[in-house]
Amino acid sequence: MKIGFLIFPNMTVLDFVGPCQVLSQVPGAQIYVFWRDLCAVSTDAGFAVMPTHTFAEAPQMDVLCIAGGPGQREVMDDAQVLDFVRWQGASAKYVTSVCTGSLLLAKAGLLTGYKAGCHWVWRDQLESFGAIPVDARVVEDRNRLTGGGVTAGIDFGLILAAKLASDEVAQVIQLALEYDPAPPFDVGSPHKAGVEQRALVEQLFTQHYPIL
Amino acid sequence: MKIGFLIFPNMTVLDFVGPCQVLSQVPGAQIYVFWRDLCAVSTDAGFAVMPTHTFAEAPQMDVLCIAGGPGQREVMDDAQVLDFVRWQGASAKYVTSVCTGSLLLAKAGLLTGYKAGCHWVWRDQLESFGAIPVDARVVEDRNRLTGGGVTAGIDFGLILAAKLASDEVAQVIQLALEYDPAPPFDVGSPHKAGVEQRALVEQLFTQHYPIL
Repeated sequence: MKIGFLIFPNMTVLDFVGPCQVLSQVPGAQIYVFWRDLCAVSTDAGFAVMPTHTFAEAPQMDVLCIAGGPGQREVMDDAQVLDFVRWQGASAKYVTSVCTGSLLLAKAGLLTGYKAGCHWVWRDQLESFGAIPVDARVVEDRNRLTGGGVTAGIDFGLILAAKLASDEVAQVIQLALEYDPAPPFDVGSPHKAGVEQRALVEQLFTQHYPIL
Repeated sequence: MKIGFLIFPNMTVLDFVGPCQVLSQVPGAQIYVFWRDLCAVSTDAGFAVMPTHTFAEAPQMDVLCIAGGPGQREVMDDAQVLDFVRWQGASAKYVTSVCTGSLLLAKAGLLTGYKAGCHWVWRDQLESFGAIPVDARVVEDRNRLTGGGVTAGIDFGLILAAKLASDEVAQVIQLALEYDPAPPFDVGSPHKAGVEQRALVEQLFTQHYPIL
């Protein structure tokens, strides 16, 4: 079972690592990490990750997963990246994304007419690419499975692990990763946070990551 | 504010990436990722990460954080790694770990007489190194802050972010990372999982990752 992730410069590393950690534990999973070359790829967390394969070397994936992050804006206009996503997405069994990765899927035409999730700050942008934004942590529509912002990738990964293997396997992975979250504050969604906190996050992101 | 992570071959990548993603967003944070050389370091999730600095290049960190994972057993006997951890831990403002990283901290003598957390499968091993195992997601004892297994690193990271900056900053980071977890199953701790699930995880880990 071939599970492929697209990475790109200045990505949000946890968007990718959350689901990758979960899905790499599914029996029979082979992880592929794609970029146009095999050089180290920067992330937004101060260190770089290594691709395992170039676009040109890629066999057809069973699962395609697109992460998001500040670097999203540049790859949204990168024809080579869009072609790769379109080509893999056309035949993958599951076409998936986490966070603003859904904007890239949508730009590649893979979410046209599909319900999809996204990081809450950018969710409405999905409409301009023909997708139907849904305010949920994980959104399923036919073979599209899309997650909300960053940490939603862990919940997304476990839901996908259950589909790829079984509930029992996903549960053992959840216990192995000791995923019994205890957030220190109750402000992790825009519905729970205050107006000022939301404004601050939107302001920070608009300054640093003007995504469109 | 210098925040340093030790990485090592066959580490559990989410142990490191969870807190690194959170702490990299703290204003003024500089992330250092250490290994003995600057070659790519393998992880247990099918791809490699890049160190940013060698042990020899390391300035004194304000925060030292040690991740865990299958490769733990080998670095537990690596004098160069233990020396680096001991040296940094002697003067760091916060000496921290996630998952089985606490076993390495303990082996380096940095948890002697301290309460500490660990992945539930290996938690009791802390005693053989003079630490006091505590069954909690995040354990604080003076300037030691240690997390439970893997995903505990995100909760740990937010608690540490609040200490390094403020509750307000940690809350904005939590909202930015949309950390409002919704695990698909309620089996993420050994207290919530069934006997068979616990046995399966222990069996898997004992087969693949004989840690001591």
